[in-house]
Amino acid sequence: MDADEARARFGAARVAHLATAGADGMPHVVPVTFAVTGDVVVFAVDHKPKRTTDLRRLRNIRENPRVGFLVDHYDEDWDRLWWARADGVARIHQDGSAREAAVAALVGKYPQYQAQAPGGPVVVTTISRWSGWSARPAPPP
Amino acid sequence: MDADEARARFGAARVAHLATAGADGMPHVVPVTFAVTGDVVVFAVDHKPKRTTDLRRLRNIRENPRVGFLVDHYDEDWDRLWWARADGVARIHQDGSAREAAVAALVGKYPQYQAQAPGGPVVVTTISRWSGWSARPAPPP
Repeated sequence: MDADEARARFGAARVAHLATAGADGMPHVVPVTFAVTGDVVVFAVDHKPKRTTDLRRLRNIRENPRVGFLVDHYDEDWDRLWWARADGVARIHQDGSAREAAVAALVGKYPQYQAQAPGGPVVVTTISRWSGWSARPAPPP
Repeated sequence: MDADEARARFGAARVAHLATAGADGMPHVVPVTFAVTGDVVVFAVDHKPKRTTDLRRLRNIRENPRVGFLVDHYDEDWDRLWWARADGVARIHQDGSAREAAVAALVGKYPQYQAQAPGGPVVVTTISRWSGWSARPAPPP
């Protein structure tokens, strides 16, 4: 799968898995709802209930801004498996125009955000590498 | 969600997301098919095609054995979201009885492995922490 196809499959997905690692090197993975604009992936701290307000995903990013996102498709027919990955450098925006643009992209993608836009910080990740894998090549369109 | 429920939901899932971080601190996430026995999570390098044989998941584990696994359920009804996480220390087994027990657990769980058992190294992770979250409490059984 080339970078363009990985980006397209990634962007069309509804949920991604964010991996971060703090200064202690302990990897941490959480699901995130997200939006893609060009080579930027955004997600927000939203109203979905969290176990704690001191989110480790944000602490880790402050300590180590390098992050990885994964989107994948599981199927009991293992010939249909695929995944797409986005690796990059993340930055947290508490306010300002970058945060506003990210919130607009999220609200545009998810009807769930139209009733209640994300109110917390936004994480904007500039992707340096799109990659992917599929068990078999995509059929011709 | 308490540790027992997290372990039960995790174990029943068909795919998990493995996060590793190498000596460079770059987080890396891949989907894995897996089995749970008590507080141990196992997965194998199997016959599903890989992009390369020098797998970064194994290189990272050799450099830093601390790993995290996530299982999650996405639903457009965000009241139905949940995830379960397992954090622990991984060890790679190229052969021996630990590898054989792990392969047996994987073959027992996945019919896909009955036709072709995993032939590569096995990763055995001793879980030190099960945790989870759900948007709403599980209904009574």
